[in-house]
Amino acid sequence: MENITLRILADKLNLSVTTVSKALRDSYEISEPTKQKVRELAAALHYTPNAYARSLRTGKSETIAVVLPEVADHFFALVINGIESVAKTAGYHVLIYLTHEDYNREKEILEHIRKGRIDGLLISVTKETTAADHITKFSPENIPVVFFDRMMEQVEVPKVVTNDFESCYLATQHLLDNGCKQINLCTISDNLIISKQRIAGYKKALQDNNQSTGKDNILFCGEDDNSYTQIYNLLKSAKRPDGMISLVDKLTLPVYTACEKLGLIIPRDLKLISYSNNPSAGILNPSLTTVSQPAFLIGQTAAKLLVSSMSSKRHLVLNELTVIPSNLLIRASSGQQIN
Amino acid sequence: MENITLRILADKLNLSVTTVSKALRDSYEISEPTKQKVRELAAALHYTPNAYARSLRTGKSETIAVVLPEVADHFFALVINGIESVAKTAGYHVLIYLTHEDYNREKEILEHIRKGRIDGLLISVTKETTAADHITKFSPENIPVVFFDRMMEQVEVPKVVTNDFESCYLATQHLLDNGCKQINLCTISDNLIISKQRIAGYKKALQDNNQSTGKDNILFCGEDDNSYTQIYNLLKSAKRPDGMISLVDKLTLPVYTACEKLGLIIPRDLKLISYSNNPSAGILNPSLTTVSQPAFLIGQTAAKLLVSSMSSKRHLVLNELTVIPSNLLIRASSGQQIN
Repeated sequence: MENITLRILADKLNLSVTTVSKALRDSYEISEPTKQKVRELAAALHYTPNAYARSLRTGKSETIAVVLPEVADHFFALVINGIESVAKTAGYHVLIYLTHEDYNREKEILEHIRKGRIDGLLISVTKETTAADHITKFSPENIPVVFFDRMMEQVEVPKVVTNDFESCYLATQHLLDNGCKQINLCTISDNLIISKQRIAGYKKALQDNNQSTGKDNILFCGEDDNSYTQIYNLLKSAKRPDGMISLVDKLTLPVYTACEKLGLIIPRDLKLISYSNNPSAGILNPSLTTVSQPAFLIGQTAAKLLVSSMSSKRHLVLNELTVIPSNLLIRASSGQQIN
Repeated sequence: MENITLRILADKLNLSVTTVSKALRDSYEISEPTKQKVRELAAALHYTPNAYARSLRTGKSETIAVVLPEVADHFFALVINGIESVAKTAGYHVLIYLTHEDYNREKEILEHIRKGRIDGLLISVTKETTAADHITKFSPENIPVVFFDRMMEQVEVPKVVTNDFESCYLATQHLLDNGCKQINLCTISDNLIISKQRIAGYKKALQDNNQSTGKDNILFCGEDDNSYTQIYNLLKSAKRPDGMISLVDKLTLPVYTACEKLGLIIPRDLKLISYSNNPSAGILNPSLTTVSQPAFLIGQTAAKLLVSSMSSKRHLVLNELTVIPSNLLIRASSGQQIN
């Protein structure tokens, strides 16, 4: 197969190599129609930029760092795929760093990155992160930052999130419509903005339906090992809910397992909805109603914003919030009538 | 909380800071009992090494690169967690690079890493990788390399794998014991050593049971989008098998979905076993019999071998194969009698 270079693309389009290169990197200096033409030909000819070669030429590292809590969650795995799809076309290497929900580790990683040869940072913070000094330090270094999903409101950079308030409002309303009288949330954090917004959406839906919203209707699960016990104890207690919304995918398995252990049948005894991008949701027993987040698109969008900031000489840092809606995928676990 | 430093550990143990540091990095210069004492105290006091601070002190990057195909598979996600558990204690940063099964991308990433400031490399190759020049180039640079799972036999470095031949032999035997007359494999590659060994184990089990082993009993699924169609067509055809072993987790969902579409009941019409570390396996409908690989332990073991090579001044490169056995977890999908 012929090795497709920038030169070949440029010749075929009657453009300069510089224009083609800038177009592929979504530079503000190039018009949208030209970018479109270049992207289409690049895709048709399966052009793969050689980031390393360009890095030698430009003296830049051409590297994007992605810092996030974990990869054992399909949400983050899909976000990474979205980021890489954009980075590949734009010719950037992607480095992934995991914080494992540890704020000190996040600080240490960011310190390490900031002193290294990184052109841009995409970050989703830990559930412990409340201060933002370690992130704002990137601005004076002219290293653009974009948040995805778990963001800090006080940092003035682009943020790409989903509609957490509305999605949890809709999930709660769906359980109420299916007859639930007591709906609990379970989550790993009430510190994250996304958790706060989901909790607010849940409370608003209860209020709009004249249901009480007690603080003790929210179960905060701590360390992974304890989640099962906490959920088991709740479902065994006199205060057992008849509806539950899990704000993170990793709590789905403990809920199913605890129900089985206690002889509770989903959805008869407990109607369940999980925030989940697990591709197995549809083949679980019973199939799981999910709030599915647009993970791939969130990754793509955040990466495009970053690439655009990096290729702009002015390093435009816009405090722009992009909201991409999630979908409620109704399956058996939330008590929909199955024919 | 007190900030636990190497100095505090050293004082409490009556050792020098250098000895404690080397012990935590598993240096061959320190005796095993001393290492044990240091590790125990470090764990008890929740000591977290500050890699960046040490990096400044030593002038080294203190960084391990992990190169692997993808993270949307629980096997790799768990391997990463195993690697990070060791790297954290030893004070190394972990960079993760994804190849997305693209050999050219793997080459480009390795070229980029080799010229960067990396102290060691952990790698699981793409399904396309047959040449190893891009990997052997690390040896003259004194950068230790360790393979995990998907290795290249011709490269003389430590390799950590599981017992692919035996595990697939046992899986095949289990399906034969449960009455299967025609067992198919489905996989994404016959190029990887691990695939070859699993296929060999499958064929040996069939031979030992006087069953024929045709080449067309192995389905090679190409691009993700086509896997479903290929599996659907096989299960719809006159050559429909009554047993199937999926060598990769990502083919499980297409098998379940195709069976549902075709009105085939697992395990009555098709008995299924998947190589899978998906935590949802036990709550699928029906629950999935799996060959579960010791992913976390593979990651830990590979990282320990790498840390040990890095801390050795001689950069001992041993062509050592470590085999950690997988487990066959029998559930409903393979036709076990359910009471």
